[in-house]
Amino acid sequence: MILSALATSVGINLALTVLLAGAYTLLRRRPAYVEVYSPRRPYAPPEPWLPAAWRHSEEDIQAAAGLDGVVFVRIFVFSIRVFTAAVVLGVGVLMPVNFLGDQLRDIDFSDLPNKSIELFSISNVQDGSNKLWLHFSAVYILTGIACYLLYYEYKYISGKRLDYFMTSKPLPQHFTVLVRAIPVSEGVSVSDAVDKFFKEYHPSTYLSHTAVHQTGKLRRLLNDAESICTKITNLKYVPRSSGDAPRKFLGLFGRNDQRGTYQKRLEDLEENVRMEQSDATRRQEIPAAFVSFKSRYGAANAIYIRQSDNPTEWQTEHAPDPHDVYWPFFSTSFMERWISKFVVFVASILLIMVFLLVVAFVQGLNNLEQLEKWFPFLKNILEIAVVSQLVTGYLPSAILLLLSSYVPSVMKLFSTMQGFISVSGIERSACNKMLRFTIWTVFFANVLTGSALNQIEIFFDPKEIPSRLAVVVPAQAPFFIAYVVTSWTSITSELTRTAALFFHVCAKCCKRDDSKAPSMPYHSEIPRILLFGLLGLTYFIVAPLILPFVLVYFCLGYFIFRNQLFNVYTPKYDTGGRFWPIVHSTTIFSLVLLHIIAIGVFGLKKLPLASSLLVPLPVLTLLFNEFCRNRFLPIFEAYSSESLMKKDREEQSKPEMAEFFSNLVTAYYDPALKPIQRSSDSDERTTPLLSSN
Amino acid sequence: MILSALATSVGINLALTVLLAGAYTLLRRRPAYVEVYSPRRPYAPPEPWLPAAWRHSEEDIQAAAGLDGVVFVRIFVFSIRVFTAAVVLGVGVLMPVNFLGDQLRDIDFSDLPNKSIELFSISNVQDGSNKLWLHFSAVYILTGIACYLLYYEYKYISGKRLDYFMTSKPLPQHFTVLVRAIPVSEGVSVSDAVDKFFKEYHPSTYLSHTAVHQTGKLRRLLNDAESICTKITNLKYVPRSSGDAPRKFLGLFGRNDQRGTYQKRLEDLEENVRMEQSDATRRQEIPAAFVSFKSRYGAANAIYIRQSDNPTEWQTEHAPDPHDVYWPFFSTSFMERWISKFVVFVASILLIMVFLLVVAFVQGLNNLEQLEKWFPFLKNILEIAVVSQLVTGYLPSAILLLLSSYVPSVMKLFSTMQGFISVSGIERSACNKMLRFTIWTVFFANVLTGSALNQIEIFFDPKEIPSRLAVVVPAQAPFFIAYVVTSWTSITSELTRTAALFFHVCAKCCKRDDSKAPSMPYHSEIPRILLFGLLGLTYFIVAPLILPFVLVYFCLGYFIFRNQLFNVYTPKYDTGGRFWPIVHSTTIFSLVLLHIIAIGVFGLKKLPLASSLLVPLPVLTLLFNEFCRNRFLPIFEAYSSESLMKKDREEQSKPEMAEFFSNLVTAYYDPALKPIQRSSDSDERTTPLLSSN
Repeated sequence: MILSALATSVGINLALTVLLAGAYTLLRRRPAYVEVYSPRRPYAPPEPWLPAAWRHSEEDIQAAAGLDGVVFVRIFVFSIRVFTAAVVLGVGVLMPVNFLGDQLRDIDFSDLPNKSIELFSISNVQDGSNKLWLHFSAVYILTGIACYLLYYEYKYISGKRLDYFMTSKPLPQHFTVLVRAIPVSEGVSVSDAVDKFFKEYHPSTYLSHTAVHQTGKLRRLLNDAESICTKITNLKYVPRSSGDAPRKFLGLFGRNDQRGTYQKRLEDLEENVRMEQSDATRRQEIPAAFVSFKSRYGAANAIYIRQSDNPTEWQTEHAPDPHDVYWPFFSTSFMERWISKFVVFVASILLIMVFLLVVAFVQGLNNLEQLEKWFPFLKNILEIAVVSQLVTGYLPSAILLLLSSYVPSVMKLFSTMQGFISVSGIERSACNKMLRFTIWTVFFANVLTGSALNQIEIFFDPKEIPSRLAVVVPAQAPFFIAYVVTSWTSITSELTRTAALFFHVCAKCCKRDDSKAPSMPYHSEIPRILLFGLLGLTYFIVAPLILPFVLVYFCLGYFIFRNQLFNVYTPKYDTGGRFWPIVHSTTIFSLVLLHIIAIGVFGLKKLPLASSLLVPLPVLTLLFNEFCRNRFLPIFEAYSSESLMKKDREEQSKPEMAEFFSNLVTAYYDPALKPIQRSSDSDERTTPLLSSN
Repeated sequence: MILSALATSVGINLALTVLLAGAYTLLRRRPAYVEVYSPRRPYAPPEPWLPAAWRHSEEDIQAAAGLDGVVFVRIFVFSIRVFTAAVVLGVGVLMPVNFLGDQLRDIDFSDLPNKSIELFSISNVQDGSNKLWLHFSAVYILTGIACYLLYYEYKYISGKRLDYFMTSKPLPQHFTVLVRAIPVSEGVSVSDAVDKFFKEYHPSTYLSHTAVHQTGKLRRLLNDAESICTKITNLKYVPRSSGDAPRKFLGLFGRNDQRGTYQKRLEDLEENVRMEQSDATRRQEIPAAFVSFKSRYGAANAIYIRQSDNPTEWQTEHAPDPHDVYWPFFSTSFMERWISKFVVFVASILLIMVFLLVVAFVQGLNNLEQLEKWFPFLKNILEIAVVSQLVTGYLPSAILLLLSSYVPSVMKLFSTMQGFISVSGIERSACNKMLRFTIWTVFFANVLTGSALNQIEIFFDPKEIPSRLAVVVPAQAPFFIAYVVTSWTSITSELTRTAALFFHVCAKCCKRDDSKAPSMPYHSEIPRILLFGLLGLTYFIVAPLILPFVLVYFCLGYFIFRNQLFNVYTPKYDTGGRFWPIVHSTTIFSLVLLHIIAIGVFGLKKLPLASSLLVPLPVLTLLFNEFCRNRFLPIFEAYSSESLMKKDREEQSKPEMAEFFSNLVTAYYDPALKPIQRSSDSDERTTPLLSSN
């Protein structure tokens, strides 16, 4: 790629970014768009959004989006800090050194716009030159800075997590344990078995339990009822907007007839639901129960000490927040879950294979000759300068970004099938899956398929990995620079919520009601952001030109997401910052990859001493990671007896605890079993039923 | 190897085995040998040893050697069962089929003694023959039998372990927790910090604690004193045997003078020890303490729930038996331990490399031509038939066995340096190290270096492993058959305790006292036994001729070790059967290796369908292993609240508990700090000091 192509790409994306941000600034206060741009608040905040996003304090964010929101923002803060240092080192020191080298003097064109961006890369430094020691030092310095910041953030966030626990009001999940694999003898109900067991072995702390029932059929009935309700609401929608007495003015016979049919079917369904709910004998018991205790410490005792002599029985684990429980999972049988896991495994492999094919095709677009060979009829068009620059500089990344946007929902579906009992568990697992998928199909697949041969075999010869990566990674620098630049548009379109806007307009056309505020899709956003950190770090010494573009991406993201967390997304669950360990380990992975590439590059650049002196760096980084795993990770997995005891004692004498405990007894009641007439507003599934009565 | 060479080897070893067993039978009741052959009892049991070993019940063994002794005997029981089935299948079905094949008809000599033992191996079956389906079925059947027996044994031993816990008298280690990394603020002692912490967070269950002190100097003084005591005892030894008043008859001035010097030095040392013990201010506190609780459940609470908000502080773990504590470890600093770990790592690699060289040389002995090339002067000798048979059939295995006998003590030294706080922990870790060492240097090194080229690279190409192994493993069948046969002698020499006998005679000559009963070296014996299981299973279809020899080995071992556990070895610690999981996982490894080799062999034998149909077998075996890990392994790691509670309640009202608790307070007192006058007989280190006073 030459500089002018890069400039074209930067120009297009900058224009698009400004355009989108401008559109958002203009549209967000229009009443018609408030539902899309500020669904959390019923109004558009009057102050300009950019200064407002800047002014919010971390306490505000925690209040609005929970600790997970804070962690999400800290990813940007951490990345901006790391990449500010990287830009100072890379653009301030390495890029001038690279540019003044003369290894590539044979392809040095006379005018700047036609110069290859390779001139700014390490390839242009003379082999064996002493200037390479600057690059060497830069790797050590950046690793030091990144590790210091990683330590600082881990410490900061784990401190926040502990504070958050200590200042939280009593929460059902801290007092409750999910018990599974309850052994039941003939003639004894699960409920009785649980009661007997915990009264015997936890006599002083056991409070109550809620048995879990098979509610698959009931759930299907409720879903049917809900979809009919939606249809009725949509029918109502037109009349309401055109006047008070629809039948008189519009009087569409067909519509009234349809409505009557729906009402009839809805009443039948509701009758069925009520019958199903009242007839407890029809419901199969599942050998699982939520067991609540009188203290947090009592619940912890039941979780961390094995309960039964047979380790496959009475298995205990942390209970999720009652709203976070993923109920449909409980209804699946063991065999169904086992088959699902297998299907997920096969499907993940298929997904990656399909994606690799797509990536191979996209990479073909980078080699215009290849493309002309495949599609001869395109030859004339591709010879136009603008088209060829557009195709090499913009199209491949756009296709990749578009396709990747569909993967998160697929990954979430996979995690759902794996059998997590909470929505947050599903999303954290999906986040990990997405991360692996992103790193493999976006980074490695592009790096490896972009080169001449099928290079996947390099992973079978560990000694050769650094030198092979040192060849194939720099070759893809232009593609990834373009990819980062293209991503500016994609992150700004988060602000304008193009897809949501589109669906909103559709809904308007079809007279549907869609005013619900969405929840933050951490499982798709976090891997995407971490990918740019990976790209920035791995290209740090190879092609420092990428660094300012990455920094701009993080700055855009910082402002945009601070705004969105306040105006758009409502938190659906609160994991208490448990996404941070994923961020930490991914950054460590990126650093080690940087080291491996650097070792290979110095080898190719005929400076073997620098290669050898770099070998301790990944080892030290991994030791640092090991230290952090010991020092901080346990805090994200469980609370200590110190905290649990302190918190329990603080609340012992508080008068509101009596009310909390009386609510705790029914907190884990399956929402499908709650009577549909009495159901409260917090229960989303039955709300439409209520409104239709 | 031809049949006559095998017969020579079997003959020699059978003769040696009978000779050694005969020698033992004759010598064991002679008073001079009682100290070597029955050190546990002061007398030789009158009944013949073989029937006695057969008659002992498992309860007797448990009473004599603890649950570890039972587990050790169960390894033989399990192996004999598996290999009885293997012999029925292998020798009864596969060997005749192999012998009647005609793939190797070109090397089929006319007379039986000169026939190659390859005729009994799968190589002799026609490629693609349908008879190979017999081999295929045999693999499935044997795996099924082995897995059933593995499950049965795991269940049996975990049941025993639970019974053992439920019937045990109160033991200090069940009520005690070792706390490490105790944070201490300025001016507060470790002891006060522990007291404050546990009184605050475990008010109802905390009983007492014992702080650990730096006693390295004291320990050195005591060691010096002990060695002088030994010298004095050895001086006493002659006079006592030659009469009552030595000075009058022998009157060796030099000896009396020496004795006086020793007595003087001993008195000085004892004075130093007393000063060191009485002056508490000289001793540095170590941030570790043994904390005892009022109930087993209370101790479990402190172990399984993280104590402090900072996970690197107040780390808790199971306390070992007071006699099992490895005190010197506590005296080493963190830095010393860290360096030791590194040294152990490097040393392990060096050890394996040295051993690989030795193995390469030993394997050279198998190829006589190679040996003649290396040492031309041996040519004439090697041409004598008996010598050449001896060299190929016996010498390589003898050298290997001799060298391997030194490795266990080295591995134990390595584990000691790694920082385990109990002797049992050290030995279990050494057992694992030995196992890896044995499998790699004895099995893989012989298999891989025995073949033409350096084959270590096969592990970098996973797809090729089965077919490569299928080539190199059968090639080494003769060597391993000879190895198994040689091992008969080595296991019988366990009965005659040749090395111990030698040292005993030396001690007699040097007038030393060595009547202490040794402890069972599980860390060297278990890996050795498991190696023969591995050999038998991996050669099951390739060379079934090995199976009867393996079975004989296990039968010999069964009788010999049952005898030794009663007469020779005193248990030094009791892990409650925690060696069994090592046996289980090694057997699973052997089975999977058998499957991989079988897949390769059927591929080479042009029966690809059988290869494909074998692929599910390793997967199923690993799934079975996963099931066992979930079902049984937790039982070997911790007791459940069910057991702990039951046991606590049973004893609550017993009157002897008051005495137990008052002893518990001082149970974890460092023996080096116990006053040397009052020290009891159970304390081995100070016993000589007492006897000299």
